[in-house]
Amino acid sequence: MVGAVKQKPAAQRLVYLNGRFVPEQEARISIFDSALMYGDMVFEMTRTFRREPFLLDRHLDRLYDSIRYARIECGLSQAQMLAATHQTIERNREALGDYDFQIMHNVTRGGMALYAELVREGTAPVVTINVIPLIRHVGGSADAYERGAHFVTTTQRSVPARYIDPKAKNRSRIYYKLAELEAARIEPGAMALLTDERGFITEGTGNNFFLVRDGEVLTPKPHDILRGVSRGYCMELARAAGIPVHEMDVEPYDVRQASEAWYTSTSIAMVPVTRFNGGPVGSGAPGPIYRRLLSAWSTSVGVDIPAQAKQYAGLAADWRP
Amino acid sequence: MVGAVKQKPAAQRLVYLNGRFVPEQEARISIFDSALMYGDMVFEMTRTFRREPFLLDRHLDRLYDSIRYARIECGLSQAQMLAATHQTIERNREALGDYDFQIMHNVTRGGMALYAELVREGTAPVVTINVIPLIRHVGGSADAYERGAHFVTTTQRSVPARYIDPKAKNRSRIYYKLAELEAARIEPGAMALLTDERGFITEGTGNNFFLVRDGEVLTPKPHDILRGVSRGYCMELARAAGIPVHEMDVEPYDVRQASEAWYTSTSIAMVPVTRFNGGPVGSGAPGPIYRRLLSAWSTSVGVDIPAQAKQYAGLAADWRP
Amino acid sequence: MVGAVKQKPAAQRLVYLNGRFVPEQEARISIFDSALMYGDMVFEMTRTFRREPFLLDRHLDRLYDSIRYARIECGLSQAQMLAATHQTIERNREALGDYDFQIMHNVTRGGMALYAELVREGTAPVVTINVIPLIRHVGGSADAYERGAHFVTTTQRSVPARYIDPKAKNRSRIYYKLAELEAARIEPGAMALLTDERGFITEGTGNNFFLVRDGEVLTPKPHDILRGVSRGYCMELARAAGIPVHEMDVEPYDVRQASEAWYTSTSIAMVPVTRFNGGPVGSGAPGPIYRRLLSAWSTSVGVDIPAQAKQYAGLAADWRP
Amino acid sequence: MVGAVKQKPAAQRLVYLNGRFVPEQEARISIFDSALMYGDMVFEMTRTFRREPFLLDRHLDRLYDSIRYARIECGLSQAQMLAATHQTIERNREALGDYDFQIMHNVTRGGMALYAELVREGTAPVVTINVIPLIRHVGGSADAYERGAHFVTTTQRSVPARYIDPKAKNRSRIYYKLAELEAARIEPGAMALLTDERGFITEGTGNNFFLVRDGEVLTPKPHDILRGVSRGYCMELARAAGIPVHEMDVEPYDVRQASEAWYTSTSIAMVPVTRFNGGPVGSGAPGPIYRRLLSAWSTSVGVDIPAQAKQYAGLAADWRP
Amino acid sequence: MVGAVKQKPAAQRLVYLNGRFVPEQEARISIFDSALMYGDMVFEMTRTFRREPFLLDRHLDRLYDSIRYARIECGLSQAQMLAATHQTIERNREALGDYDFQIMHNVTRGGMALYAELVREGTAPVVTINVIPLIRHVGGSADAYERGAHFVTTTQRSVPARYIDPKAKNRSRIYYKLAELEAARIEPGAMALLTDERGFITEGTGNNFFLVRDGEVLTPKPHDILRGVSRGYCMELARAAGIPVHEMDVEPYDVRQASEAWYTSTSIAMVPVTRFNGGPVGSGAPGPIYRRLLSAWSTSVGVDIPAQAKQYAGLAADWRP
Amino acid sequence: MVGAVKQKPAAQRLVYLNGRFVPEQEARISIFDSALMYGDMVFEMTRTFRREPFLLDRHLDRLYDSIRYARIECGLSQAQMLAATHQTIERNREALGDYDFQIMHNVTRGGMALYAELVREGTAPVVTINVIPLIRHVGGSADAYERGAHFVTTTQRSVPARYIDPKAKNRSRIYYKLAELEAARIEPGAMALLTDERGFITEGTGNNFFLVRDGEVLTPKPHDILRGVSRGYCMELARAAGIPVHEMDVEPYDVRQASEAWYTSTSIAMVPVTRFNGGPVGSGAPGPIYRRLLSAWSTSVGVDIPAQAKQYAGLAADWRP
Repeated sequence: MVGAVKQKPAAQRLVYLNGRFVPEQEARISIFDSALMYGDMVFEMTRTFRREPFLLDRHLDRLYDSIRYARIECGLSQAQMLAATHQTIERNREALGDYDFQIMHNVTRGGMALYAELVREGTAPVVTINVIPLIRHVGGSADAYERGAHFVTTTQRSVPARYIDPKAKNRSRIYYKLAELEAARIEPGAMALLTDERGFITEGTGNNFFLVRDGEVLTPKPHDILRGVSRGYCMELARAAGIPVHEMDVEPYDVRQASEAWYTSTSIAMVPVTRFNGGPVGSGAPGPIYRRLLSAWSTSVGVDIPAQAKQYAGLAADWRP
Repeated sequence: MVGAVKQKPAAQRLVYLNGRFVPEQEARISIFDSALMYGDMVFEMTRTFRREPFLLDRHLDRLYDSIRYARIECGLSQAQMLAATHQTIERNREALGDYDFQIMHNVTRGGMALYAELVREGTAPVVTINVIPLIRHVGGSADAYERGAHFVTTTQRSVPARYIDPKAKNRSRIYYKLAELEAARIEPGAMALLTDERGFITEGTGNNFFLVRDGEVLTPKPHDILRGVSRGYCMELARAAGIPVHEMDVEPYDVRQASEAWYTSTSIAMVPVTRFNGGPVGSGAPGPIYRRLLSAWSTSVGVDIPAQAKQYAGLAADWRP
Repeated sequence: MVGAVKQKPAAQRLVYLNGRFVPEQEARISIFDSALMYGDMVFEMTRTFRREPFLLDRHLDRLYDSIRYARIECGLSQAQMLAATHQTIERNREALGDYDFQIMHNVTRGGMALYAELVREGTAPVVTINVIPLIRHVGGSADAYERGAHFVTTTQRSVPARYIDPKAKNRSRIYYKLAELEAARIEPGAMALLTDERGFITEGTGNNFFLVRDGEVLTPKPHDILRGVSRGYCMELARAAGIPVHEMDVEPYDVRQASEAWYTSTSIAMVPVTRFNGGPVGSGAPGPIYRRLLSAWSTSVGVDIPAQAKQYAGLAADWRP
Repeated sequence: MVGAVKQKPAAQRLVYLNGRFVPEQEARISIFDSALMYGDMVFEMTRTFRREPFLLDRHLDRLYDSIRYARIECGLSQAQMLAATHQTIERNREALGDYDFQIMHNVTRGGMALYAELVREGTAPVVTINVIPLIRHVGGSADAYERGAHFVTTTQRSVPARYIDPKAKNRSRIYYKLAELEAARIEPGAMALLTDERGFITEGTGNNFFLVRDGEVLTPKPHDILRGVSRGYCMELARAAGIPVHEMDVEPYDVRQASEAWYTSTSIAMVPVTRFNGGPVGSGAPGPIYRRLLSAWSTSVGVDIPAQAKQYAGLAADWRP
Repeated sequence: MVGAVKQKPAAQRLVYLNGRFVPEQEARISIFDSALMYGDMVFEMTRTFRREPFLLDRHLDRLYDSIRYARIECGLSQAQMLAATHQTIERNREALGDYDFQIMHNVTRGGMALYAELVREGTAPVVTINVIPLIRHVGGSADAYERGAHFVTTTQRSVPARYIDPKAKNRSRIYYKLAELEAARIEPGAMALLTDERGFITEGTGNNFFLVRDGEVLTPKPHDILRGVSRGYCMELARAAGIPVHEMDVEPYDVRQASEAWYTSTSIAMVPVTRFNGGPVGSGAPGPIYRRLLSAWSTSVGVDIPAQAKQYAGLAADWRP
Repeated sequence: MVGAVKQKPAAQRLVYLNGRFVPEQEARISIFDSALMYGDMVFEMTRTFRREPFLLDRHLDRLYDSIRYARIECGLSQAQMLAATHQTIERNREALGDYDFQIMHNVTRGGMALYAELVREGTAPVVTINVIPLIRHVGGSADAYERGAHFVTTTQRSVPARYIDPKAKNRSRIYYKLAELEAARIEPGAMALLTDERGFITEGTGNNFFLVRDGEVLTPKPHDILRGVSRGYCMELARAAGIPVHEMDVEPYDVRQASEAWYTSTSIAMVPVTRFNGGPVGSGAPGPIYRRLLSAWSTSVGVDIPAQAKQYAGLAADWRP
């Protein structure tokens, strides 16, 4: 399903920034913007399949929910944001070539009033939209579809939603970074799996977690996690395939008893989790339900997802984003 | 004690950015830096009295503790950071004129590896140091020394230290902003006073809280708060004055029973809290221990702090930072 | 469906008090009764539709469960309580006229042994039953059916059931009153919406909360709330209408994403919640599912509920309860 | 120190009720008062020694703090409340005879607006003050000074202060009554000792708890308890005697290791706790520090407290309050 | 369905111990084994019906999950453990006679390295398997099938799974014993019913809890409990009988409202719970759904369970295990 | 101070077991004893210096407190236990030679009534006392006094005292073992440092933790830890040396800011902690206060503790316990 891929095009990509288009290296935010003073920024990350944005409406719905959570007056209606998104894609069509690409939206609250004159945009919010081929992001994970990921639980836990709501996709997430560093100390290459205050699993740092037991798909309850668009899509694929799906309290115990596990994320769809806290998950290899759902996903979007990843992996070494 | 103040000088202020000096409007961070992807930045805010940095060593000690917490390899030793700070002040001497000024340090982890080429600094951390006269910051609070602040407790609570440690001065603080917005909805002009999961008071959003009962100074325990340098200095002033100081679990009940309350922050030292949740604190006016400690502070730094604020207030309208 | 309403009748209403009938102003409890020493009283509140008690059996079932919770030996069997209720209604038939009315049951544990002789009833429990036309209660909410209520979350939270079980309808509820006062400080006219220790919504202060998302009716789990009889009836109406109903953990996030919300209470059935924490719920107006269920309720009880409220509103000004 | 006691006088005692004086059996509150609708009442309990109110100022200070907590506008200043208290005592001088007596203050918020006309006092708060000889209260505990009390921990825990603050002496305390009933089921005559959510001891149901270890007096932290006036006085007596006193987290473990324990309450000052959860505390008999402090208390107030209790015990059988 | 039972046979029973067979009195573990140093042992308890092990595969599945939880390298594969189990039964066939019997598996981690030479087995794990007729265990409960058990909640709570996971059947359960002792102090013969930190019911000390409300079977959620094999079987029987079964948060409130309750355990299948915290459950007698499920169980295993218990009760007095 | 050490003697050591003396390999507990069924055993571990038991009275005080916690009727008074201890030492004098040795006491509740005949001791408790030269225990840690230990925090947390009280030295401690295994997975050779539910440090798995900041010695609060006898002794040494000591809430933050840290345990007194979570503690080497206190300890007991450890290390290879 993966079409031929042309050489990386010469055209320079540009980033939408409050209505202007600037080179990527100019996509910068003032240190006096609330975004940097407080981690006070919301965002979205979307990808394309066959160069069509995947579930873009759901991503923008969530972006506007995050905006309401943060009570930012961003200056664009959701329709205008959609138009700006398409404008950004069009402007970069040549530069993007035939690759699938990511679409990242960022919205800040704007410069602090105290420092208004020191900020180019004054106190106005800063909206950026950027598009980047997924060569490196997807290509770098090409072997993960077979080898699988290793998850470890960390002493760094999820921030409960009553403190900072992870369902709003905000940028106050230093604890993600701290968890990633801790996981790497435990075992090189391991990824962090967060838990909540009661010991239930929540999410990875930028992905959602699933497991299979007795032929049913289980995933953590939707409170202390980002409700990923890919997570929702994966649940729909399973239900369409007649596989029961339950949102429930998932414990490390359940992972030890699972026959399969995987995580979902926007850029790479579904990756099997084959090891957990130093032991194998199920047989230690990608399982049949995982394969079935990934295949359904590939079919649905018209892209053989693992094959595309391999293709991109071959390009990544020479590629300069 | 406040000396004569000259006209605002014409020279342009410059910001230290990884060894270079750039105009303030150029002090910007890439949207692909970990600082914006994760709120993954640490910082410090220091002020001068009589143009001498106040307790700069303590601020830099804390900055390097925050750096260790975040496990950032920032590329500068603490001695080098101190030298860069002095270099930044010297470079801006003319532009700063005779005003006291703030010194802000920011340290990011650097560009995400995935996007390294899109970031001017690559994956190197970004260190910025800026200096800005306190005209607006201090002048804007000039009447607070007599009128006092109104604090309200919010449903937005402090993030417990086991999730994100507030003792490390990091930028993942969207909950500060959310609390401020909530306080303003409760009563225009009110400031947020955060509480912990058990209902004990922690801190304001960028300040530390004190109260007086039976002639003793009480302040929240040092776990779920930023241990402010001004907080520490205020405690030292009280002890030097023979007033007992206790770090303890402070409840809203204690505020209702207090004879005085105030908050401390770097830029404006000590401001009385005269109202709490809609009722007066003590007599509703600044109390004797507050006045005594603020006076001791003024004497100690050679600046009549409220008088300076009034002077700066007179300048603020015409002043362009 | 609302019949013609006669003038307020002249006959005086009487309150059942341990088998006697006394004027309402005599319905008083000794300050030495456990009810006032400890908030140690249980109660029920029922209303009529077309002068027939609505789901009285369920109310009495719950009253006797509350009695068991409080371990009060009230001296009446549930059948006797039912008989006393009917006796009270009969005795007041003339005084009640053609209005629908409330029925309130109160049961105390009785006078403290230490003070037995100071209490008219000695250490015997005090059972009172009173009936009052709903003119003011219902009439005062007449415009709420269209305008809707504004709910705000408060720092005052629900007392968890393991401390005092709200499922037992007891009178130790000063926190309801404190929450109401807090809500009024946040915004005049706003009503309090309580949350639990983990930030999930529980109930209003005397009402239950519902919302609609994706065409499904959601309501908080039945642990830290009063399981209102009207709540149960509303769920039955929804299910009868083919609308899925789920008891689940409901967060403020869910209200922001809801298309509709309402609350239920005995006296006024269902009132839309059109604002939440200062923003609109859904479109900010009563929604289609709300209207459909209220209409079903009206049909079911033979009273056009909003119309009755308007009618009573017209009478309320002149009415003296 | 206990003087001769005359026969019970014939004069009838009267209760202050909103400025009037009524017989005790008339001291009743409308079932439509917020006090009974919500447990929304605050109170105080003081006693006399040698017919002089003991630390009345502290009790009234606390009463007015409770009033502020509940945000009741009670209509009397603290000075007016004091005057009304003395007026009540004077009015009852003859009826009180030579006995020491209790003084109980109650303040309600008043009738609910909805039912205003059904309440004699309308929506005005109801203030009552009553005085009763301590014959039965004190006499009934006469043997406790030697035999000691048996405390058992219950599954019913203290309501944490963040839900309902026990430091405000309010009447929403059905959990006290439930704990007392549970203690009696565990062992006849046993009294309940409450614990908090983390298992630390808080208080009894109407008394404060102390223990002795290594010659030091320990008592629970002052957050989730009523800060009893007698508790404070006992701490002062210990300090005056050169005995260290610490407020700390007290666990059942500490009681098992204590050499002595006691509780304090207004009416009976200090009673030893000689058994805990079915085992002896220390030697199982009143300890030397207990005896020393009780003796100091007796000396301080000019009443041999245990002797008075014995004397009153002799009168209690014939006495009608 | 209960067959004739022969006299207790003369042959001595033997215990499997690391491949050897030893008399029961020799089935001992070194005090230097990790099992005694840390409570570091896992186990299973199975019974037979008609001398066939009941659901042995499920018990061994769980045993190996416990082994993985404890990270013990026990030296036997699950198949080998099964073989050793059958070998143990065969070896004891004569000694077991016609009685049904228990099968207990124990696995320790082995001697601490520090003390290796002091332990007969060195640092090797110790696996024991023993079989004992159920005469006393089952016979002793014969009247419980009609009389029912009395459960009381204790201040001793379940250890949450995040500290020690009860789903792994480990031997660090002193809190079970402490709860049993506490229950016996509350009322002779009462059994302990544990609750979790939020007050929800978890399990008994060695059994699982069920109740019936509105014709549905409810049982606590499967997190902080041992997921008993009998519990699972009981749920299957109910579903097979068309009775809905829900795992949910169960509160003491629910028990007060239940029409029936029972517990399940390996040796005695299902016993009605007829009293709870001093009051009756439902009618206070075994209920119809209990009877129906117990009957289905008896049918399914070919043993009239209560009849067998009565028969064994008649033998127990003379029986020496 | 370390005297000459003779060759390991030929005499066999014997273990006290309920009044008899048995070879160490016979010191075994029945699998039907409550100790193995429930982890229901309490114990003590004491060592000698110069062959004199060190603070034996404190150890036995604690043993009897543990016995009261577990409500075991062990059959020996504390004086009898002391006598049995001395008897055990005397009986082994020749076998112990000139080495210092450990003394371990174990007390079980005894055989389960159900299995009484299968247990040699019947239902009587089993008391064992054993003595073993510290050659291997102390010798194996000889280089730790200079190199220091590496502590890592684990996801396995301390069981809070309200579930199982660690102040009672009981054997239900599988979580210690799980934490040790987790620490070893994080980094070979690392030791586990447990934290409580709020993230505060509690203890190691068999040792207590100390740190130094600003010249003061800090150690975790005494609630969720074993209050080690060595911990208490170390605090006394510090106070005797004029160094302030505080029991307080200690966070990982405090360890990052500490200048020194160490742990205490019975067998090896004090060992520096030089690394924490992958970074150095202070300078990464033993600090001056550590050295001073260890030296004071050595002086106090007349044994150069590190020197003895080196001496024993030289013997350990050839030594057979």
